[in-house]
Amino acid sequence: MSGSAPKTNSGRFFEDFQLGDVIVHATPRTVTVGDVALYTALYGPRFAVQSSEAFARAIGYPAAPLDDLLVFHIVFGKTVPDVSLNAVANLGYADGRFLKPVFPGDTLSTTSEVIGLKQTSAGDAGIVYVRSIGRNQHGEIVLSYARWVLVRKRSPGMPAHAEQVPELARAVQPEELGQGCPAVELSAYDDALAGSPFRWSDYAVGERIDHVDGMTVEEAEHQIATRLYQNTAKVHFDAHAAQSSRFGKRLIYGGHVISLARGLSFNGLGNAFHIAAINGGRHVAPLFAGDTVYAWSEVLASAELPGRSDVGAVRLRLVAVKNRPCADHPLKAGDQYDPSVILDFDYWALLPR
Amino acid sequence: MSGSAPKTNSGRFFEDFQLGDVIVHATPRTVTVGDVALYTALYGPRFAVQSSEAFARAIGYPAAPLDDLLVFHIVFGKTVPDVSLNAVANLGYADGRFLKPVFPGDTLSTTSEVIGLKQTSAGDAGIVYVRSIGRNQHGEIVLSYARWVLVRKRSPGMPAHAEQVPELARAVQPEELGQGCPAVELSAYDDALAGSPFRWSDYAVGERIDHVDGMTVEEAEHQIATRLYQNTAKVHFDAHAAQSSRFGKRLIYGGHVISLARGLSFNGLGNAFHIAAINGGRHVAPLFAGDTVYAWSEVLASAELPGRSDVGAVRLRLVAVKNRPCADHPLKAGDQYDPSVILDFDYWALLPR
Amino acid sequence: MSGSAPKTNSGRFFEDFQLGDVIVHATPRTVTVGDVALYTALYGPRFAVQSSEAFARAIGYPAAPLDDLLVFHIVFGKTVPDVSLNAVANLGYADGRFLKPVFPGDTLSTTSEVIGLKQTSAGDAGIVYVRSIGRNQHGEIVLSYARWVLVRKRSPGMPAHAEQVPELARAVQPEELGQGCPAVELSAYDDALAGSPFRWSDYAVGERIDHVDGMTVEEAEHQIATRLYQNTAKVHFDAHAAQSSRFGKRLIYGGHVISLARGLSFNGLGNAFHIAAINGGRHVAPLFAGDTVYAWSEVLASAELPGRSDVGAVRLRLVAVKNRPCADHPLKAGDQYDPSVILDFDYWALLPR
Repeated sequence: MSGSAPKTNSGRFFEDFQLGDVIVHATPRTVTVGDVALYTALYGPRFAVQSSEAFARAIGYPAAPLDDLLVFHIVFGKTVPDVSLNAVANLGYADGRFLKPVFPGDTLSTTSEVIGLKQTSAGDAGIVYVRSIGRNQHGEIVLSYARWVLVRKRSPGMPAHAEQVPELARAVQPEELGQGCPAVELSAYDDALAGSPFRWSDYAVGERIDHVDGMTVEEAEHQIATRLYQNTAKVHFDAHAAQSSRFGKRLIYGGHVISLARGLSFNGLGNAFHIAAINGGRHVAPLFAGDTVYAWSEVLASAELPGRSDVGAVRLRLVAVKNRPCADHPLKAGDQYDPSVILDFDYWALLPR
Repeated sequence: MSGSAPKTNSGRFFEDFQLGDVIVHATPRTVTVGDVALYTALYGPRFAVQSSEAFARAIGYPAAPLDDLLVFHIVFGKTVPDVSLNAVANLGYADGRFLKPVFPGDTLSTTSEVIGLKQTSAGDAGIVYVRSIGRNQHGEIVLSYARWVLVRKRSPGMPAHAEQVPELARAVQPEELGQGCPAVELSAYDDALAGSPFRWSDYAVGERIDHVDGMTVEEAEHQIATRLYQNTAKVHFDAHAAQSSRFGKRLIYGGHVISLARGLSFNGLGNAFHIAAINGGRHVAPLFAGDTVYAWSEVLASAELPGRSDVGAVRLRLVAVKNRPCADHPLKAGDQYDPSVILDFDYWALLPR
Repeated sequence: MSGSAPKTNSGRFFEDFQLGDVIVHATPRTVTVGDVALYTALYGPRFAVQSSEAFARAIGYPAAPLDDLLVFHIVFGKTVPDVSLNAVANLGYADGRFLKPVFPGDTLSTTSEVIGLKQTSAGDAGIVYVRSIGRNQHGEIVLSYARWVLVRKRSPGMPAHAEQVPELARAVQPEELGQGCPAVELSAYDDALAGSPFRWSDYAVGERIDHVDGMTVEEAEHQIATRLYQNTAKVHFDAHAAQSSRFGKRLIYGGHVISLARGLSFNGLGNAFHIAAINGGRHVAPLFAGDTVYAWSEVLASAELPGRSDVGAVRLRLVAVKNRPCADHPLKAGDQYDPSVILDFDYWALLPR
């Protein structure tokens, strides 16, 4: 290959994606206790299973697993240079399943398959649907999720791909949950150490929980987090270029908001120690440095896991809000989201029974 | 338990504490080299024993121990949701003893016993005295200290507890020091690598040392630190709520100031590698992001340790000051603290003889 | 030694250096996966060898090595209290060679030999040349480099040292490269995982590569980094003192700029996994918090390594620029650097053949 070939990655445009393509993403990543410490320092999570080797081993894990969202961010970060460098918008997630716990020392890598393509009516961009798979060093799938993004076309006039939109379940089914959680030794599960007396059966469908606390975000914090995930999306890092952007400043990685809200949710959901699945998520509005994030949750459903009496699943809507407390559970006014809402996230958590 | 029970922790009020109560605090925490790296990055400590496995092993430790203050902050952080969420003020510490070194891989947990209660004359709050105990995964006590905080009453009109104020020593006695420090192999203690030629006998009672250097604090730094300790006190994190507070902005965790001052104190106390005891500490004034911290020390006392010829103890007053250098050792003007003083901290350090 | 002896380090002045002096620097440092995680979080490097245990082992490393610049910063940081506390300017580097890979768990220490002295014509300062050597816990040299700094005299009137200026090669010779890189198993080197199809022979002398992306720097970030390296230079940390300095604000450690530019250079140099040597480096202009760093590279030379067919060396000029993109490769206008240029760095990288 000649020295004059362009060496830098300018990202794929809509035309560059073909249905069925499998993309091997760069930079496998060994996760360590260093990542765990940083994750704690960035979000302040207090779930005992991830915080304590002793607690995790007592209830049946071989070691303290990584926070599920840390796994998500690292698996996700690898897809950015190949999938969303030219994305106009991150439209949604679906069918995210955490299938194996991840431990310090594991090496994560990601591949993505193009599962859908749909040009916009304006013809200058298109929606790309991918299924991304995170694997550990043994090739075992630790996380699988679908995501769709709006990607610019290189040449607006080019003819469109044949349209193909995948069917994605609105929610992961309870039968599919729990593979990422070993059998839990309930007799060793200590509510006082876990920080909550409320178990699976204590959460009623329709119940709303204000997580009370607020967390203000600094530029240094979200940049440190997003680099930790080796996520290279320019909008999070380049204040100079951002000056001429729509918002005039850096945007905070949406995953940072999810982790902040999840961290806050400990206050009310202390035993919801494992995210088993992500049903969907919508970044309703952007977050900027200086904003303060609050959160509340609604119990959407509750389910037993087939064949398991140790843990049960609760389907939760986790709503993150900026610059106002959540005692009144802000969400929508009519069809529109309340202007304070920044995240509407739908997931399954496991709790001890 | 019904789904409608309140799930969030609103913290204990003065009436909720009973003399003799033992509180098991949530979220045991496995400490790792990740925490050590973050602690280094946040405060820049340079004590060789904590920085170098090779140095620590050569002089008799089984591994490089964690910085004593990192242990303190983690043990302390766990008490916040149960003890001081409704605290008006953190009044003091006493009788803090570091009883076992802590190493990466250890899991720390904390319990607190209520050892004193005293309602204020106004009747709307009371002082709660607790003895907090940090233990490792073997149940061994690594740290024990007393602390008292002013806590709001839920109902100002409620009758007061019987008053009970514990007797707390003004200083830990030399006989009680040294349990947290193994026998030190002096022949292997290398002053050049440690960074100071001054040993225990070189410090004279009354000597004052200006630590010269200054460190400016950023919001991101103290938030990262305080979350690392899983300390949930809202005042450190919520700029939105702080707007309507007395100071109008976030307050920096007092322990952050202690660690900054201790880090600065290396310049003058390079061989004071171990904090054996905390005699007392007073957060004289608040620190805010943007302020620059300086520090100086005074030698209050010097003591041999019974039966040990390897190390000696020096009792130090560590004074942290903001936004002005300390060449003139600012402390008090008459009965009042100099307005620049933010911390007046009294501890025993061990040095090689 | 009496208690009244000054205990603090005020740094060496020009008169305090003697030709041939060997300084043992303080505070050996065990590097860990915690440091690796922080380095990733601060700069976002994506080179697969350092990121992935699995990748590193597959190609012939015994474990994932530390980023070469992380090693450089830690070795360098130790020299600051002894060499450059009274430095007016950091003038240059030469003959830097990375001689052994460094792995988590290794303990690094540094010594420096004074190899040159030259008083300025004004007589109030002098240039000190040192050769600094970083060693691991086995005493093996991991890094050797020369550096020269302009240091103030304590007493401007004092007679000068005899002038002695060392001869330093303008570039490390190809024969000297590669000791820090084990034999690479090319069949296991996976370009897709590494993130670039471009190998050693794909880079042509004279080729220029714009690394495209920009990274804005925050005060908290460079302070966290510089403390991680236990670098104590006041100018990076003390905003209060900086108010009365030439720039009126904190200066960012030059090494932070090198690491940022190196991180950005992944986009275009993804297989340049190892820095074998630093030929020279010049911090052309200061960087301040709030600035955005961009970078571009020029291929200065290409060389085979004697007796090795696994990897080849490319000599690169890495130029860091602030607050403007680098599509036009800004460098000099006539004899003067373009005002946007902050770093002109010359190094040898190894790439798989």
